[in-house]
Amino acid sequence: MFFASDNWAGAHPAIASRLSGSAGGFSTAYGDGELDKAVYEKFSEIFGREAAVFFVATGTAANALSLALYGKPGGISFCHRESHIMEDECGAVEYLSGGGRLLGIEGALGRIDPAALERSLGGFFPESVHSGRPAALSITQSTEIGTLYSLEDIEAISAIAASRSMPLHMDGARFANALVALGCTPAEMTWKRGVDVVSFGGTKNGCWCAEAVVLFDLDLAREMAFLRKRAGQLFSKSRFVAAQFDAYFEDDLWLENARHSNAMATRLAGAIDAALTARLAWQPQANEVFAIFGDELAGRLQAAGATFHQWPAPRDFTGQLGEGEKIYRFVTSFATQSQDIDRLADLVR
Amino acid sequence: MFFASDNWAGAHPAIASRLSGSAGGFSTAYGDGELDKAVYEKFSEIFGREAAVFFVATGTAANALSLALYGKPGGISFCHRESHIMEDECGAVEYLSGGGRLLGIEGALGRIDPAALERSLGGFFPESVHSGRPAALSITQSTEIGTLYSLEDIEAISAIAASRSMPLHMDGARFANALVALGCTPAEMTWKRGVDVVSFGGTKNGCWCAEAVVLFDLDLAREMAFLRKRAGQLFSKSRFVAAQFDAYFEDDLWLENARHSNAMATRLAGAIDAALTARLAWQPQANEVFAIFGDELAGRLQAAGATFHQWPAPRDFTGQLGEGEKIYRFVTSFATQSQDIDRLADLVR
Amino acid sequence: MFFASDNWAGAHPAIASRLSGSAGGFSTAYGDGELDKAVYEKFSEIFGREAAVFFVATGTAANALSLALYGKPGGISFCHRESHIMEDECGAVEYLSGGGRLLGIEGALGRIDPAALERSLGGFFPESVHSGRPAALSITQSTEIGTLYSLEDIEAISAIAASRSMPLHMDGARFANALVALGCTPAEMTWKRGVDVVSFGGTKNGCWCAEAVVLFDLDLAREMAFLRKRAGQLFSKSRFVAAQFDAYFEDDLWLENARHSNAMATRLAGAIDAALTARLAWQPQANEVFAIFGDELAGRLQAAGATFHQWPAPRDFTGQLGEGEKIYRFVTSFATQSQDIDRLADLVR
Amino acid sequence: MFFASDNWAGAHPAIASRLSGSAGGFSTAYGDGELDKAVYEKFSEIFGREAAVFFVATGTAANALSLALYGKPGGISFCHRESHIMEDECGAVEYLSGGGRLLGIEGALGRIDPAALERSLGGFFPESVHSGRPAALSITQSTEIGTLYSLEDIEAISAIAASRSMPLHMDGARFANALVALGCTPAEMTWKRGVDVVSFGGTKNGCWCAEAVVLFDLDLAREMAFLRKRAGQLFSKSRFVAAQFDAYFEDDLWLENARHSNAMATRLAGAIDAALTARLAWQPQANEVFAIFGDELAGRLQAAGATFHQWPAPRDFTGQLGEGEKIYRFVTSFATQSQDIDRLADLVR
Repeated sequence: MFFASDNWAGAHPAIASRLSGSAGGFSTAYGDGELDKAVYEKFSEIFGREAAVFFVATGTAANALSLALYGKPGGISFCHRESHIMEDECGAVEYLSGGGRLLGIEGALGRIDPAALERSLGGFFPESVHSGRPAALSITQSTEIGTLYSLEDIEAISAIAASRSMPLHMDGARFANALVALGCTPAEMTWKRGVDVVSFGGTKNGCWCAEAVVLFDLDLAREMAFLRKRAGQLFSKSRFVAAQFDAYFEDDLWLENARHSNAMATRLAGAIDAALTARLAWQPQANEVFAIFGDELAGRLQAAGATFHQWPAPRDFTGQLGEGEKIYRFVTSFATQSQDIDRLADLVR
Repeated sequence: MFFASDNWAGAHPAIASRLSGSAGGFSTAYGDGELDKAVYEKFSEIFGREAAVFFVATGTAANALSLALYGKPGGISFCHRESHIMEDECGAVEYLSGGGRLLGIEGALGRIDPAALERSLGGFFPESVHSGRPAALSITQSTEIGTLYSLEDIEAISAIAASRSMPLHMDGARFANALVALGCTPAEMTWKRGVDVVSFGGTKNGCWCAEAVVLFDLDLAREMAFLRKRAGQLFSKSRFVAAQFDAYFEDDLWLENARHSNAMATRLAGAIDAALTARLAWQPQANEVFAIFGDELAGRLQAAGATFHQWPAPRDFTGQLGEGEKIYRFVTSFATQSQDIDRLADLVR
Repeated sequence: MFFASDNWAGAHPAIASRLSGSAGGFSTAYGDGELDKAVYEKFSEIFGREAAVFFVATGTAANALSLALYGKPGGISFCHRESHIMEDECGAVEYLSGGGRLLGIEGALGRIDPAALERSLGGFFPESVHSGRPAALSITQSTEIGTLYSLEDIEAISAIAASRSMPLHMDGARFANALVALGCTPAEMTWKRGVDVVSFGGTKNGCWCAEAVVLFDLDLAREMAFLRKRAGQLFSKSRFVAAQFDAYFEDDLWLENARHSNAMATRLAGAIDAALTARLAWQPQANEVFAIFGDELAGRLQAAGATFHQWPAPRDFTGQLGEGEKIYRFVTSFATQSQDIDRLADLVR
Repeated sequence: MFFASDNWAGAHPAIASRLSGSAGGFSTAYGDGELDKAVYEKFSEIFGREAAVFFVATGTAANALSLALYGKPGGISFCHRESHIMEDECGAVEYLSGGGRLLGIEGALGRIDPAALERSLGGFFPESVHSGRPAALSITQSTEIGTLYSLEDIEAISAIAASRSMPLHMDGARFANALVALGCTPAEMTWKRGVDVVSFGGTKNGCWCAEAVVLFDLDLAREMAFLRKRAGQLFSKSRFVAAQFDAYFEDDLWLENARHSNAMATRLAGAIDAALTARLAWQPQANEVFAIFGDELAGRLQAAGATFHQWPAPRDFTGQLGEGEKIYRFVTSFATQSQDIDRLADLVR
């Protein structure tokens, strides 16, 4: 019963096997091999538009390089105040952008509140150098707490970005989970709604290590190439990432994995909702379930071998925590099995 | 006949298969899993001393983070003027160290000349802030042009470093090739001769992506952990690197691969030495062979399907290039087959 | 009636004249002249302890270099969320520290709330690299909104810093104003209460350009010397700063200037307090007065030639703003004349 | 007999007195005052073209911010290998550009050799990210060793820069000395010959502290404003710099000072040329004289109270140093008196 994180799973058999199958032979290094190029093409196909694709080692790297790309002296990147780049990446954006700043915006359920964003932006005046200046906007889809921006939500945020000539970045560590939940195309969730660059994550959804920056502004591709290289993020044997993405996209495995993962989360949420000893902290929309329960149940679950993390209450959380109650996070993945959900369901019932 | 680089090869079957075999199951992320820890232990065993081990994505990252670790305001890292960190990493050291500087030292055959190093260091005075100050020293083993520092060479360099209280870094992108060529232990080639930190490369010697910073100063381990994280170099599914190293070290596969690779280079060097149309630029000592020949032969080899790179003459090169002659680099690897050498030998004969 | 800022004033006659008087002759450059050394001595005398003194160009530089000195990978500097380093220095700390982060802490009346600081620090765990780690704490004395930390307040904050082994920085852009208001010695307001480094400002209190980093940890002095130099903050004709400080300290001119400035603020506050059309936003404690009034009065004051700035309501502000009312800041300085206060008093009456 | 450096002098009386005279009254801070604006205008007039002017604290800051402005990921700034930014600014360019690199180019007499520059640039290929890429070119006028680029020299260098779309920076720490030596206009020495940005130094030529970045590309002015601010280089009481420049430019004081300084150097050079115990290392062209002599004379001069610095022989130096002979630098300034030259002449005769 592993619900600690979707990055605790290994690799999907089809991906592991494709990788293994491409171990032989020689190929041009540094991302210029045949397979690399075929996969870049595939990305453009999937996004319905030519995109520049950059494999990097981690989601943190994808996020930080994306925002560094749009950095400028005194530049500030706006994000949700409890986003991953703010809370869990050790200041990578600041480091790799040469001293940029993140400014956290409030918003219920892990989503930036457009009104709060407007208010914050309202404090910056182009003629003043003292306060710095807006440089980029970053949203996470699905969010850090398993919720979604609807297409309308993205549109609203992106209109604000556009009104300030700010590029819009999407942290898509769980891009596929959001996509299948919304039931839209990648284009509809990104550039058709004003997204300029995506951190496209495959690792949490069945790959070993497959993360990419997907950049729609081709004029900036050359800059990103240099940024990536000097950040030590250009793999020599790049084809080992390409091979993973190749299998990931084949026969829509990525969507299938995400659907499975989301379905497992829904099943788990149903069990918690029905339980007497636990309740949902908020409604899950992708593959993360946040539940509220007391120490006794927490201990019992752990004793039964379940792994999961306690989670700090979001500052915008409006629910109530009873005496001894805490919020816990359960993450499902392509590898989650329904029996494990059912076992957990038995334990919380 | 692929001699362009050892990073054009894929993965050794034993490594690919071990990786594939560890795809199932769940494991703690971010380098804290059981397999990760077992591999860290293995490193300490191999080096005969407790070491802190940090998997990173690339050799460039290992080098830059190692030198960033020892960086300081106005700090200068000394290296050979044609080393990889100087010529081929897009300024990663400067970037990740927040503006450190590399200072290239001359030296024949890819090795830092101790006397030149002393001369350069002699221009820095502790009481002067204007010129900056020595921060670290970096050597490459085997060197960028396929030669070796003997153990005595390392000792000489490291004595200079010690006399200035400068830490000594070894870029070991081809660590194993050097090790088997010298026939010594990892300890003898590193910390027993004053090396403080090693960029330990597995990628060029049969792994997909297996690079590690091996740090002997455990007091700095915590700093490196933060540095790595904020550089976006901490893999979530770290075990996919661990699995590769696990197979790499098993039954001395890494040494065997390196011995094969070096033997192939020796065979190739012999063929070139015996050829009428080509000659060795200098004596190879590991798995890189540099040859001198004219355009006609170059064209003929390429037409026959051989891949290899033209190489700029080192500034310390004392040989002569005839009309139309150039220096070319041939790199062998675990995957090089003797038939390919023989075919090439036929072509140059 | 100039109340826009204390940096709108020029230089005190005694300081201008001392500077002018030292224009002749030759002197060692880069801070090693006789006058420089004498002034460093004077600083140590004033602080009752040997200190390392570094002249820099601006308060922003003093702050950013102080925090950069204590920076580390993933390091976070805690400060009041509306402090000058957070709101008005264009990300200098982030830039000059190579990507450090500022984390703003709430607190009424411009002072960090110790309980809020503890809560925030409670979210960092030494064993986790993801969230970064506390690196330094910075307080402003007098604060950005003209209030003071009492000696007990400093002690409380510094105890928290010490419990986390965090160095404590004091932004003393208005150091003298705070000092005379508290009626204590520099030692009592700084190192005797755990302050490790001070941005000591003379510019706002009668100098042209006289800012210094005063560092009590002499072991770090060498680091700061390199930091300052490579930030382009080491003056060649350093004696022009030394000459200003020399006059500044002579016969306690600095304290006299600050007393005058504070007295003018008190007089102004009294006038506002007595006015029908305006009221104090909060009680001033140094040389800044924040008043609340409506557009009509604002227009009338401006028409009469008064300069002052509108100020955003602090997020911790608990007062009420009526329809059309805003908060305005009035700053007094060594150059403020009582007639100007009286004229203003007439206008607000 | 002070010849250690032109920054050992204080301030010219006219400048000191103008500064002193502007101490009273209130003025808008941060470079937006009336006097500031008038001086910006004056710069545009002097350069015969609208320019954006940014006062900064030091020449190091002017240089580093100029090159940071044109920095880019993997960017390399080319300069003479013994230029001030390379040898004497503690890595400020690297630091303030977030990890850019300086690449030193050889060239006799302190001037970049165009052929060597071409050769170095020839090693960079736009399609390769590994080696980084040319970002800017920097020349020093007059050079670090007191020589000049003729207008044709500048043209030749700038043609190379243009052919690579590289901006051209001029380190004008001794701009006026070069200008009067060449007898041309500022326009002719800068933008009319392809210079994009100038570090315009007033400090060494009679000011206390008056350095400015003069930027001809107005589109980048906004960027520079933010860069300067976050580097802690925006003076609040900016008018104290403006006042100095105001006097500096009035009645061509700056040119007069430079002419005096150069004339003193010529007189000193004549004396050395005529001496039996000393000789010129090379022909001076501005206000620095480099002489060769033995320890005995050096000791005698020092005993007589002369200050001057020993100087390392340039790597391109083709002269001969006899046993015990060294190169020494003598710098003249606006404050150098002919009697001192004559005394020195007596001593070397």
